[in-house]
Amino acid sequence: MKMIINGKKVDSESGKTFNVTDPATGKVIEAVPKATEKDIELAVDAAVTGQKIWAEIPVWQRVQVLRKFLDLVEVNKEDLAQTLCAENGKPISEARGEIGNIPIGFSGFIEHAKHYYGSIIPQGTEQGQDKNIQMVTREPIGVVACIIPFNFPCDLFDQKVAPALMMGNAAIVLPSSDNPLTLMKLTELLVEAGVPNGAIQCLTAPGAVKSAAVADPRVHLVTLTGSTEVGIDTAKIAAGNLTHSALELGGNDAFIVLDDGDVDLAVEELVWGRMYNTGQVCCASKRFLIHNSLKDEFAKKAVERIKKLKVGMPSDESTQIGCLISEKAAVKVEGEVARTVEQGGKIIMGGHRDGAFYEPTVIVDVPKTADVAKDMEIFGPVVPVIGFDTDEEAIEIANNSIFGLSSCVFSRDQKRAFKVATAMEAGGAVINGASFFRAFEQPFGGWKHSGIGTEGVFSTFDEMTRVKTIVLKNIL
Amino acid sequence: MKMIINGKKVDSESGKTFNVTDPATGKVIEAVPKATEKDIELAVDAAVTGQKIWAEIPVWQRVQVLRKFLDLVEVNKEDLAQTLCAENGKPISEARGEIGNIPIGFSGFIEHAKHYYGSIIPQGTEQGQDKNIQMVTREPIGVVACIIPFNFPCDLFDQKVAPALMMGNAAIVLPSSDNPLTLMKLTELLVEAGVPNGAIQCLTAPGAVKSAAVADPRVHLVTLTGSTEVGIDTAKIAAGNLTHSALELGGNDAFIVLDDGDVDLAVEELVWGRMYNTGQVCCASKRFLIHNSLKDEFAKKAVERIKKLKVGMPSDESTQIGCLISEKAAVKVEGEVARTVEQGGKIIMGGHRDGAFYEPTVIVDVPKTADVAKDMEIFGPVVPVIGFDTDEEAIEIANNSIFGLSSCVFSRDQKRAFKVATAMEAGGAVINGASFFRAFEQPFGGWKHSGIGTEGVFSTFDEMTRVKTIVLKNIL
Amino acid sequence: MKMIINGKKVDSESGKTFNVTDPATGKVIEAVPKATEKDIELAVDAAVTGQKIWAEIPVWQRVQVLRKFLDLVEVNKEDLAQTLCAENGKPISEARGEIGNIPIGFSGFIEHAKHYYGSIIPQGTEQGQDKNIQMVTREPIGVVACIIPFNFPCDLFDQKVAPALMMGNAAIVLPSSDNPLTLMKLTELLVEAGVPNGAIQCLTAPGAVKSAAVADPRVHLVTLTGSTEVGIDTAKIAAGNLTHSALELGGNDAFIVLDDGDVDLAVEELVWGRMYNTGQVCCASKRFLIHNSLKDEFAKKAVERIKKLKVGMPSDESTQIGCLISEKAAVKVEGEVARTVEQGGKIIMGGHRDGAFYEPTVIVDVPKTADVAKDMEIFGPVVPVIGFDTDEEAIEIANNSIFGLSSCVFSRDQKRAFKVATAMEAGGAVINGASFFRAFEQPFGGWKHSGIGTEGVFSTFDEMTRVKTIVLKNIL
Amino acid sequence: MKMIINGKKVDSESGKTFNVTDPATGKVIEAVPKATEKDIELAVDAAVTGQKIWAEIPVWQRVQVLRKFLDLVEVNKEDLAQTLCAENGKPISEARGEIGNIPIGFSGFIEHAKHYYGSIIPQGTEQGQDKNIQMVTREPIGVVACIIPFNFPCDLFDQKVAPALMMGNAAIVLPSSDNPLTLMKLTELLVEAGVPNGAIQCLTAPGAVKSAAVADPRVHLVTLTGSTEVGIDTAKIAAGNLTHSALELGGNDAFIVLDDGDVDLAVEELVWGRMYNTGQVCCASKRFLIHNSLKDEFAKKAVERIKKLKVGMPSDESTQIGCLISEKAAVKVEGEVARTVEQGGKIIMGGHRDGAFYEPTVIVDVPKTADVAKDMEIFGPVVPVIGFDTDEEAIEIANNSIFGLSSCVFSRDQKRAFKVATAMEAGGAVINGASFFRAFEQPFGGWKHSGIGTEGVFSTFDEMTRVKTIVLKNIL
Repeated sequence: MKMIINGKKVDSESGKTFNVTDPATGKVIEAVPKATEKDIELAVDAAVTGQKIWAEIPVWQRVQVLRKFLDLVEVNKEDLAQTLCAENGKPISEARGEIGNIPIGFSGFIEHAKHYYGSIIPQGTEQGQDKNIQMVTREPIGVVACIIPFNFPCDLFDQKVAPALMMGNAAIVLPSSDNPLTLMKLTELLVEAGVPNGAIQCLTAPGAVKSAAVADPRVHLVTLTGSTEVGIDTAKIAAGNLTHSALELGGNDAFIVLDDGDVDLAVEELVWGRMYNTGQVCCASKRFLIHNSLKDEFAKKAVERIKKLKVGMPSDESTQIGCLISEKAAVKVEGEVARTVEQGGKIIMGGHRDGAFYEPTVIVDVPKTADVAKDMEIFGPVVPVIGFDTDEEAIEIANNSIFGLSSCVFSRDQKRAFKVATAMEAGGAVINGASFFRAFEQPFGGWKHSGIGTEGVFSTFDEMTRVKTIVLKNIL
Repeated sequence: MKMIINGKKVDSESGKTFNVTDPATGKVIEAVPKATEKDIELAVDAAVTGQKIWAEIPVWQRVQVLRKFLDLVEVNKEDLAQTLCAENGKPISEARGEIGNIPIGFSGFIEHAKHYYGSIIPQGTEQGQDKNIQMVTREPIGVVACIIPFNFPCDLFDQKVAPALMMGNAAIVLPSSDNPLTLMKLTELLVEAGVPNGAIQCLTAPGAVKSAAVADPRVHLVTLTGSTEVGIDTAKIAAGNLTHSALELGGNDAFIVLDDGDVDLAVEELVWGRMYNTGQVCCASKRFLIHNSLKDEFAKKAVERIKKLKVGMPSDESTQIGCLISEKAAVKVEGEVARTVEQGGKIIMGGHRDGAFYEPTVIVDVPKTADVAKDMEIFGPVVPVIGFDTDEEAIEIANNSIFGLSSCVFSRDQKRAFKVATAMEAGGAVINGASFFRAFEQPFGGWKHSGIGTEGVFSTFDEMTRVKTIVLKNIL
Repeated sequence: MKMIINGKKVDSESGKTFNVTDPATGKVIEAVPKATEKDIELAVDAAVTGQKIWAEIPVWQRVQVLRKFLDLVEVNKEDLAQTLCAENGKPISEARGEIGNIPIGFSGFIEHAKHYYGSIIPQGTEQGQDKNIQMVTREPIGVVACIIPFNFPCDLFDQKVAPALMMGNAAIVLPSSDNPLTLMKLTELLVEAGVPNGAIQCLTAPGAVKSAAVADPRVHLVTLTGSTEVGIDTAKIAAGNLTHSALELGGNDAFIVLDDGDVDLAVEELVWGRMYNTGQVCCASKRFLIHNSLKDEFAKKAVERIKKLKVGMPSDESTQIGCLISEKAAVKVEGEVARTVEQGGKIIMGGHRDGAFYEPTVIVDVPKTADVAKDMEIFGPVVPVIGFDTDEEAIEIANNSIFGLSSCVFSRDQKRAFKVATAMEAGGAVINGASFFRAFEQPFGGWKHSGIGTEGVFSTFDEMTRVKTIVLKNIL
Repeated sequence: MKMIINGKKVDSESGKTFNVTDPATGKVIEAVPKATEKDIELAVDAAVTGQKIWAEIPVWQRVQVLRKFLDLVEVNKEDLAQTLCAENGKPISEARGEIGNIPIGFSGFIEHAKHYYGSIIPQGTEQGQDKNIQMVTREPIGVVACIIPFNFPCDLFDQKVAPALMMGNAAIVLPSSDNPLTLMKLTELLVEAGVPNGAIQCLTAPGAVKSAAVADPRVHLVTLTGSTEVGIDTAKIAAGNLTHSALELGGNDAFIVLDDGDVDLAVEELVWGRMYNTGQVCCASKRFLIHNSLKDEFAKKAVERIKKLKVGMPSDESTQIGCLISEKAAVKVEGEVARTVEQGGKIIMGGHRDGAFYEPTVIVDVPKTADVAKDMEIFGPVVPVIGFDTDEEAIEIANNSIFGLSSCVFSRDQKRAFKVATAMEAGGAVINGASFFRAFEQPFGGWKHSGIGTEGVFSTFDEMTRVKTIVLKNIL
């Protein structure tokens, strides 16, 4: 496939390419252009021009263009799902789900954009302002670089590209080099739907080259979902030009079951909250803090339940758990599990790797001092169980982390559940459900090293626009 | 005076001090502690503890504490004004005005905090969320470093400290080394009013030591008003810990008079918009773009009007224009005026310096290619007049700057005024008034190199809190 | 055609019918059932049941049903436009426009409903509430009677039925007896699209029978657009059961041209603002207050401009002005013009009636004491010109009316325009445009005898729901 | 005491008076003027003038006036409390509490008024509006008649007069004839604080004369708290002029304890929720629906707990339960208890009357068919216990009432609690607390025969203002 720069399907100006591989089979799917800094520059050139044209188009007409895009997605949905499955390793059923989310996510932003109102600060409410009316409006922020991770490329494309476009910005999509193909196709569909040249582009660039986009002073916002390490590097580069950045980064979410929690419900939520996408989820539940009186029951039932899940080739219709994004990723998980065992954990299920496949794994007796109980995020289907005695101890363990993405608590007592939820140093707190909860509406975002800013229909427009106050001075 | 750390009046642990000088007379007013990185660390230690205590106090009780502070300010207002006048060089009348703003600004934040509501994303509005209720709440962000500039120290103290405290945060005040005394006094009054130890502190620190506060990972937000250069450095350091930053930086605001503009009104607004605080205002009008048919009339009337202003010692009751913050600052202005003359401008009034005093100065025939017409911000009472022929040319000149703080346009025609206001790449656009407009309510903030984020009663709470979404999963 | 009760196409239980006539030709188009109070009772029975079913369907699924309705409208649009033209007398071009508005209006409500959030009043903001969280939610109001006038039946159907359905209510449509056919067809399409039985119904009922719906205690909201007389009667009946009522009633909007107003623009706006729909518009400009220095020029140019409009048979493609809704309506206009002449006006154009057709008419020298200058609303293409000398006099004349629907002012001076706009005792004030302005978003509603409540995407949901505060007491 | 009309303390023009009596002793406290329709007319005359003057005063200055009023209340608070106790019969401790609420309530409205923003509907969001900006503003509604009940005269004064004044309206206070004295004093203090003549007035008028205020077309809003019967009559009269009305009326709130509810907590909440103000509370819990497995325990514990309450003379410092507002009121309660017994209830505690005193009374075995279980609201300290078997049955009984003010449910299970709370056909649903919950912030208001509109800092301004949309047509 080609990149999209200035409305055209192009190769890299260098002529170089790199391969996209199916992680389940190791086979090359296709070669894609390897973008250079020069390509980035050309794309930003086009974005600057395209943004001005796109911003002149009224919101309701932008809606028509994006609705046409959704029609094209509908026509191509099976092809998109198969592409996503192949390049990502996620089960085909999950890939279909993610493609099926596109109309949900895009529609949210489309609709809300038409009812995104400005504000008036009336005369006379503040001393000294008796005759002045302040009109608070929202203007496009300009060129937006969208750096998108491998795990849910389409969901994040929805979260970033839809609001960027609806607010009159130009979006430059920078997919993960592991699996850019689906996003390249989606970008083509946006062009086909009528987004003007330069207003939507897609470049397949190595990480260092992505940084060139962040460093370009004509880029006004970088919206990135990725690791904390990459997030910090990006923030530093962006700071050099006072470029805005919105960062959704790593997490190590606590999954807390209090002594009155519903263990069966918790186990069922674990399946969704830790096994979905083979555990490669930023807000997956990653630390299972189970009251000591329940932890054996929980572990036992978790093993029983997980065993019922079918692990298999992603393309197989019945597969429920596929492989990781790459063998490299699986090797990393392998090392992290080993470290957890060294630090006191006992594996009672799983623990083996085969290529990019890593078995669903349950580790009990993990001490709260272990790395995984604090700052080590495992991006795979691993369930480390950590015991605790009191609500306070659970809160303390949960908050003893550099991360603060989301969290969850199971209790039958509403007061205790709220007490824990309120105490969580995290951007989310799910009561009686897994921390893996991300509605498109939700202002999703982490505290501490889990990010800056929130993302979702409820709030993204605030980040993708700039405030302008038009003052009617002495008008009254 | 002493610093305030953990509720105590203290010296620097190093025992070192530096002098605060009256810029109008060159006399030392008082020595203050020269904070070190160790002092910063102690302050952050105390802030972490104090913030937790303060956040537990309900909003309505925090209000009572801050209202008591306002009572203390009322009692001490003349002393505060004299201190501000002496250390800053601004006319005593303006110093009194700034102290008089404290109750206006604080009240705004106090009141709004009591009516700052959360949101509910109801079940069933998004596919897949039929049984889940999302409660979007706002939590304190934690420890806030408030870096405050010399020009309006109290106004910016209001803008930063009041919302930080109302939202349950701990504030560490870092005043300008040129004039920290008034803020040290205000901090003492907050302690006296009952803000707990550590929740409000004030350290007199050189710039490099301030950076230690920015670099401390336990500081969650840096709110800074200052130069773009310092802003960028701060942003870079903050990025290292994913510390939030809110930056109000430099500006070079255009003051546009269209061919149908009211010249007399424009000249009157110039007095306020360029001469107030001897021109040391971030959103002062700094580039006077006057239609060629009006520029001679404008320049002539401006000179006549400015001549009526009384320049004198700041402490003199009748003085309208005082000195700059330091002789160094005045020398800088002198150099910038010289450069403007080199680049084609002609001085028709003023142009001389005497110590920290710089005469009100009008420069005509400034070409649009001159530095002052683009990116050179002059922080003094200087009026460079640049001609233009068409509305489009005026817009082009105005936007041809790295800055985008505010702007203004004078026209009798509402449509033309809105057209220009809408085209301004800036956070503000005043119609028929100077760009120097900053209501406490206003979400004030710059575009491009003028900053990130907005500040004001309308919006600051969003920056001084973190979103938490509490999900009631399967509740219905 | 038949009525729709409980999902079925039915006759009146009495078997009686009445004729719907083409006002331009006097020919009967079709007979429709003449509903009785028994029919109303059956409909309310079905609505009570249907509402409960419909309210259980999540918002996003209701959206899918209404989008299917819009697809059906698209297929049937020419038939709907022809029906509307025939039964209403409006030019076919205007009828097509009104059908074309259906997707615009419905989409607005559809979209906004998906992002209509609740609020949280957090703990601790009010003394005594330190441990309580208040969740402010919106629930369906129940059964909504939609009483719709003849002049823009589809636009008002959009404004009433779309929000009623989106909020989970049952809607009973009660069209004007003059022209119910288009709405009967639209109701059929809603049923076809999948709105459950009873949740959408349409009854062709004489005014007195409509009152039975208002009087039924199981109807929770009456939303009516119509005359002030009918509005007051309705409000009285509704009061008996504490039934909510939203009333958009009569108007006699002032159209003010100040001495610096743009006469050409004003004349052009007059065409839209007074001649559209042959003047049968609630917020048409109905009193032309023209500064004495401009009134002759205005009258002359108005006559010239109006003469260019093509009066003709509504069904003729080139017709710009059709007939009134009935000969009776035209006779009423004839009488009102006669009264205006008696009271001092001079006809300089038009003034004749032919069946249901009434000529575009301009009357000058109308004294401000004339009925038309105050409380007599003429529902036809009549332009009474009233002179004035000062802005204050114009304001006084404009406000000297029992009505307060909308208003407008023409001035090149923004301050004067705002001064007049602010002084208007009316729900709208258009600057440099006719008072006939009604965006679907706008919270449209009159002051004084022009109504109670506002209607539009921005605000209607507030009227079509009931607030429920769920208190989590002592939760923290 | 005198009435306040147009800033003066006056008698009725008729010279007539009526007596205000202490219900606990039967002694006359003082005679007050008996207003006539002529007095009402004079007051409305003054209000029309006064409102215009008051509306011209900027919001921040209105705040200063009301803050001065609060200072005066502080000085007079014990006198006000004693007056309220004497004329009302409520315990002095409760009277002090109600006076103590004045600063809480007024401050809420004062603060929120300064941050009550308008909205902008931006260009281009709706098809056809590409060049128009809509500014949605809020204007004073005009003259507001405040009809205030006997039970919490000061709380309702806060809820009605504070927002009326803050929004620039004139308020005419119409207290209950039983106990007008405290409100007369408060009105005097508002005049003393500087509210202009006519902008605040107080008339002591019999019910029929109050209707004259409702009927005056120059009154724009009637805000009434009272019985449903009076509310309906008022609504009918208001309808005649399209006068807005906001009605907080009767209630018969269900207090539901599910089988897993905390009986001890429920009993404790009963004390507050049914005995406060001797049960004369609109949203008191009035129907105790207790699961059959718990009802005996509940009744027994309720009796024990209530016995600890001290019944006595209202003026006695230790009294916890005083008398009713009048002997007539007590006789009415006596009859209602008798009817409940006739219909199957058994009194297990209390049941006797002594003058205006009515004993705290518990009635068990009340069948769900009894009047008290449906539409008979008892305004006194009576606890009728009704059993049920399933959650569904509890919901059915609760909703089988013409009323829908508030409600509550006790359950340890969050899901069941939300299910019941959501099912309540009422404006409030308290989880694990009595239905008697009314924060000043809360948008308090009933469904069905319990009222129209909501009242509270969160929402009242919407009812006490009129929307005006200023359209900047073709501005862009």
